[in-house]
Amino acid sequence: MRFHTRKWVKPGDLNPNGTLFGGQLLAWIDEEAALYSIIQLENQKTVTKFMSEIDFKSSARQGDIVEIGIEVVKFGSASLTLKCEVRNKMTRQTIIVVDKIVMVSLDEAGNAKPHGKTKVEFVKDRLEH
Amino acid sequence: MRFHTRKWVKPGDLNPNGTLFGGQLLAWIDEEAALYSIIQLENQKTVTKFMSEIDFKSSARQGDIVEIGIEVVKFGSASLTLKCEVRNKMTRQTIIVVDKIVMVSLDEAGNAKPHGKTKVEFVKDRLEH
Amino acid sequence: MRFHTRKWVKPGDLNPNGTLFGGQLLAWIDEEAALYSIIQLENQKTVTKFMSEIDFKSSARQGDIVEIGIEVVKFGSASLTLKCEVRNKMTRQTIIVVDKIVMVSLDEAGNAKPHGKTKVEFVKDRLEH
Amino acid sequence: MRFHTRKWVKPGDLNPNGTLFGGQLLAWIDEEAALYSIIQLENQKTVTKFMSEIDFKSSARQGDIVEIGIEVVKFGSASLTLKCEVRNKMTRQTIIVVDKIVMVSLDEAGNAKPHGKTKVEFVKDRLEH
Amino acid sequence: MRFHTRKWVKPGDLNPNGTLFGGQLLAWIDEEAALYSIIQLENQKTVTKFMSEIDFKSSARQGDIVEIGIEVVKFGSASLTLKCEVRNKMTRQTIIVVDKIVMVSLDEAGNAKPHGKTKVEFVKDRLEH
Amino acid sequence: MRFHTRKWVKPGDLNPNGTLFGGQLLAWIDEEAALYSIIQLENQKTVTKFMSEIDFKSSARQGDIVEIGIEVVKFGSASLTLKCEVRNKMTRQTIIVVDKIVMVSLDEAGNAKPHGKTKVEFVKDRLEH
Repeated sequence: MRFHTRKWVKPGDLNPNGTLFGGQLLAWIDEEAALYSIIQLENQKTVTKFMSEIDFKSSARQGDIVEIGIEVVKFGSASLTLKCEVRNKMTRQTIIVVDKIVMVSLDEAGNAKPHGKTKVEFVKDRLEH
Repeated sequence: MRFHTRKWVKPGDLNPNGTLFGGQLLAWIDEEAALYSIIQLENQKTVTKFMSEIDFKSSARQGDIVEIGIEVVKFGSASLTLKCEVRNKMTRQTIIVVDKIVMVSLDEAGNAKPHGKTKVEFVKDRLEH
Repeated sequence: MRFHTRKWVKPGDLNPNGTLFGGQLLAWIDEEAALYSIIQLENQKTVTKFMSEIDFKSSARQGDIVEIGIEVVKFGSASLTLKCEVRNKMTRQTIIVVDKIVMVSLDEAGNAKPHGKTKVEFVKDRLEH
Repeated sequence: MRFHTRKWVKPGDLNPNGTLFGGQLLAWIDEEAALYSIIQLENQKTVTKFMSEIDFKSSARQGDIVEIGIEVVKFGSASLTLKCEVRNKMTRQTIIVVDKIVMVSLDEAGNAKPHGKTKVEFVKDRLEH
Repeated sequence: MRFHTRKWVKPGDLNPNGTLFGGQLLAWIDEEAALYSIIQLENQKTVTKFMSEIDFKSSARQGDIVEIGIEVVKFGSASLTLKCEVRNKMTRQTIIVVDKIVMVSLDEAGNAKPHGKTKVEFVKDRLEH
Repeated sequence: MRFHTRKWVKPGDLNPNGTLFGGQLLAWIDEEAALYSIIQLENQKTVTKFMSEIDFKSSARQGDIVEIGIEVVKFGSASLTLKCEVRNKMTRQTIIVVDKIVMVSLDEAGNAKPHGKTKVEFVKDRLEH
């Protein structure tokens, strides 16, 4: 799994108990899954369709740095299934894991649209062609 | 299921495709589950421990009004299991359903703490005693 | 008065004194009045025109849960007058009361537009017809 | 009346109708009243106690620049009464006027605390002494 | 230099060390430079092109009031060069200074567009003509 | 240079011209520099002290994905100098470059504190010891 995006837990990200607000964490995961899918599928109109169960294993505190990892589970014809893990950057302790996030590629009318992709591509390789 | 909290979908809540950002929706659900549990368990230190799978059935658009419903599935000794549905207020179309959200009551040290509750209570009744 | 929307007072909602920022509270009230009016008048283009005097009776603190109540005072031809109260969910202590919030229904050009409503309707009843 | 703070109306400040969200406007007014009072009363623990009726005279749109004016109506023993006007910077059209905003100076325990001020002071003059 | 806009440092503006988040401060400066330029150049399509080096001289804490000052350095044909200083309102201590912020006036196509201005104008004078 | 954090440009990140708000971009850069420094210096109390001049080379639009790259320029005794580039993920077009961002490690009293680091370390290697 590759970990890219990092977040610095600031006071505005906390719940009233002083730990990272779970809703903020879910929003970060959803954004990362969306942008990863847009990069892979080369279609800005890619939306979240499904998330498998979510286990909140540990929390994060003000000042912690968390990193968000994504890996591809499966390329469908119009979908892309991802796995996501968020962990504490300094201790590598897992905060949350979502085994399956299904993203779907849509056409202008909002219908599923085959994306023609079958494996992970790197933007660098695309640009070099 | 009782629907209480309502949200007005504003431009700042949208993803770049112009529909409600899924991460914002998940954050709203997590906040509603948390505050519902705090009311029932009478413990501010109540946190999200688990969410079952999430199916994004439909989306919402700028100007839509959504309402968030919660019902109790089960009282555990230190936990409370909830079901959540978000729907469009005007059409009653379902946007998202989460069958199980497990909330856990904690003590000051962050350990699970039995809450002693076994059924839904209303604040009104508590105050009248 | 019916209380629907609930808010969990998080660190990002506080003023520098550590109590709920009054401006945030007013923003919550304005949103609730707007969405209530849109539901009743069935017109998304409904705007706040007037608020009567506002007495900040008590405050709220981090972790408190507040609920926002609305009731109809009067249906005008193009307007709807509401009363709003915000109170602490757990203690029922009143935080703020606004006796009159006048909302106006507009047409596409931004002019007042008669809404034809004379009494409170429930979405459930509309959908059953 | 002196107009100091200026705001640039950005997409995140809009309601779903594409005009400035009234709740955002009220939050800006409340912040300006609070900071003006803190400067005058030299007490950071100064809170909003009362606002007189609010007439939303016109709105603002994305890209507009609004400026917020404050003037002192009266110095009480523990209070300060302000008048506030928000207008469009480029056209000087009035957007909203609040004739009386009563701010109260508090002590550490949260009780009204006489501030000893009777007229507007300028920070420059204080620092020159 | 004229100081207009004032900000009240709230919990949501802090970094995890409890001082004003530098990124928030830079965002405030950029907004003030943009709106000042739009007022002077009478063109809403005015963008930030360049900032000279930035020295973070001191910080601000929760509850502090900061004010943002702007002065014109130079009118170019399609550009406007500004100087900006942010200081603590109560102590006048400097927080940050940016000697040169170059703003550029654009036409609809996004190309530099001569603005025809050569000196600072006041909206009042424009409206009186 | 290594590019880690990615951002999806959402409606709430835009200026009124519909392009990425420069202030938001600067806030993202400041956060990335801060968290990168905290990871390297193993001190949460690390603050931004200086940024060299900033050239806004191109902008980003709603739906674009931007990535933020950081590389170390120099380890000082209590400081760390970084270079930062933000680019469009899909086209690799440069949006902004900041050649020098000086971060300083502080002790509890807020004074510069030698960090003892002389080269880039990876968390993985630290944890394996």
